[in-house]
Amino acid sequence: MRDADEKYMKLALDEARKALERGEVPIGAVVVADGRVVGRGHNLVETLCDATAHAEMQALTAAAETCGKYLTQCTLYVTVEPCVMCAGAIAWSQVKRVVFGAADPKKGYRRYSNDIFLPKTEVTEGIVKDECERLMRDFFEGLRKSDS
Amino acid sequence: MRDADEKYMKLALDEARKALERGEVPIGAVVVADGRVVGRGHNLVETLCDATAHAEMQALTAAAETCGKYLTQCTLYVTVEPCVMCAGAIAWSQVKRVVFGAADPKKGYRRYSNDIFLPKTEVTEGIVKDECERLMRDFFEGLRKSDS
Repeated sequence: MRDADEKYMKLALDEARKALERGEVPIGAVVVADGRVVGRGHNLVETLCDATAHAEMQALTAAAETCGKYLTQCTLYVTVEPCVMCAGAIAWSQVKRVVFGAADPKKGYRRYSNDIFLPKTEVTEGIVKDECERLMRDFFEGLRKSDS
Repeated sequence: MRDADEKYMKLALDEARKALERGEVPIGAVVVADGRVVGRGHNLVETLCDATAHAEMQALTAAAETCGKYLTQCTLYVTVEPCVMCAGAIAWSQVKRVVFGAADPKKGYRRYSNDIFLPKTEVTEGIVKDECERLMRDFFEGLRKSDS
């Protein structure tokens, strides 16, 4: 499973780089069902001028088009720990498994509660973590430099 | 403020009734800025086949079209206490004030944390509460009857 997880997390990283190219916080997500990508998304908050347009929200809504509104056979891969909004969306969508790369102690859902996902939802963290973290760090360091 | 709150909550109830007519869980929301309605929404989970299509998400996204992505001058009126996903969306959107009708002990955000909104966001509950509660109770009682 580790090899498959790395493969799909790299697709989520490809999505994160698309966000970066648009000047967005570089977070990407893919939803996978039975080895098939059924949803992709990247952060579009600035592009859509919508503070809720997170990568996970885009990917979940895309996956629902194929799989229906309950994603009970799906794994969501996302480059950064989901925020509380996205964790709630994951719960409502009944996602089977969540895999994330970098932890987010400031905005991640675990700051608020460990019980937001459904009890049966499996969680794996730290997949391709270094690359997920580096993308975020480089982005925010770039912002600070352009501010100074 | 109480009169204005009741007036806008009744508009949110009108939205909730639109959801009911579609066979959706009857929850509605409006976003108001400077006495003007800048966003409306009702629950569209079944209609859009998207488990994240809550009334608040629709109303916030609609308001962002008019006000930009930060709703710092806006009040969100919603007939039922927001869930954790919608509470997160309210925080990201920097909504100034949240007013809700019925409490939701099972799915409401307060079950998880009281700290999801920004610290400066004002919260008022219980506006036109009886009507908001009745609409939900009648809906779920109807569902139970049709199941039996």
